[in-house]
Amino acid sequence: MTGDDFLSSVRLAAEALAAKASTYVLSSLDNEGYPAMRALLAPRRRNGIITMHFSTNSSSRHVAEFVNDSRACVYIYDPDLFQGLLLKGRVAVSRDQRVLDDMWFDGDEVFYPLGRTDPDYSALLFTAQSGRWYENLATVDFTL
Amino acid sequence: MTGDDFLSSVRLAAEALAAKASTYVLSSLDNEGYPAMRALLAPRRRNGIITMHFSTNSSSRHVAEFVNDSRACVYIYDPDLFQGLLLKGRVAVSRDQRVLDDMWFDGDEVFYPLGRTDPDYSALLFTAQSGRWYENLATVDFTL
Repeated sequence: MTGDDFLSSVRLAAEALAAKASTYVLSSLDNEGYPAMRALLAPRRRNGIITMHFSTNSSSRHVAEFVNDSRACVYIYDPDLFQGLLLKGRVAVSRDQRVLDDMWFDGDEVFYPLGRTDPDYSALLFTAQSGRWYENLATVDFTL
Repeated sequence: MTGDDFLSSVRLAAEALAAKASTYVLSSLDNEGYPAMRALLAPRRRNGIITMHFSTNSSSRHVAEFVNDSRACVYIYDPDLFQGLLLKGRVAVSRDQRVLDDMWFDGDEVFYPLGRTDPDYSALLFTAQSGRWYENLATVDFTL
């Protein structure tokens, strides 16, 4: 296998993991520069492993953290297969109504009682710049 | 319930989650100050939710990251119960042989072929200073 073929196979495995993961962990930096993470439901919109749109509450702490510092990472893993994917990138916070409308799912009133124009409904737009793939005891780094 | 009773019940729930979680996610800061995470097996030694000793490869990137900047967080969650625990603290990297001996499990030769004195065998000693508990749509902050 050439180096390019190898990286293509890693990308395919990473995209397969992203497609099946129901929970994503997103990390921000808190007001003292410490990493801070939380689990989120899978992104509402996702373009491969490059861009991911998550919905969240405007009032949640990581929204304020990303407004202050956009540096971020996303992590997904399968503990049974010993596979993990770390994506490094930045998060933009959006309250653009077109973005929010596009991400809305039936039943989201549970989280945002006022509906798609609820001021507590925000989008976190993650864009990856590089990735690291973990499988068994090996790691592979790649740019995006 | 008084405030103290409430915090005690949160602490108990957090400790129960820590006891049953088989995978922990640990976040460091990379050389550009971005958060970076990876999944680890449950800590080999754990004192409640205050201190946790993880084993890892000395050559792994997060070891170098923690030597450079000890700011860290640990995250565990149960996606079925919508429970999550974020612990903020610091990580010290140790190659103290007494610490390494104490953490050694039968079969660890898979990770460290030269045994308990393998130079590629290191300990990550996490100490929490505060916590955040997630359950359903609520969060509770506490100091440790």
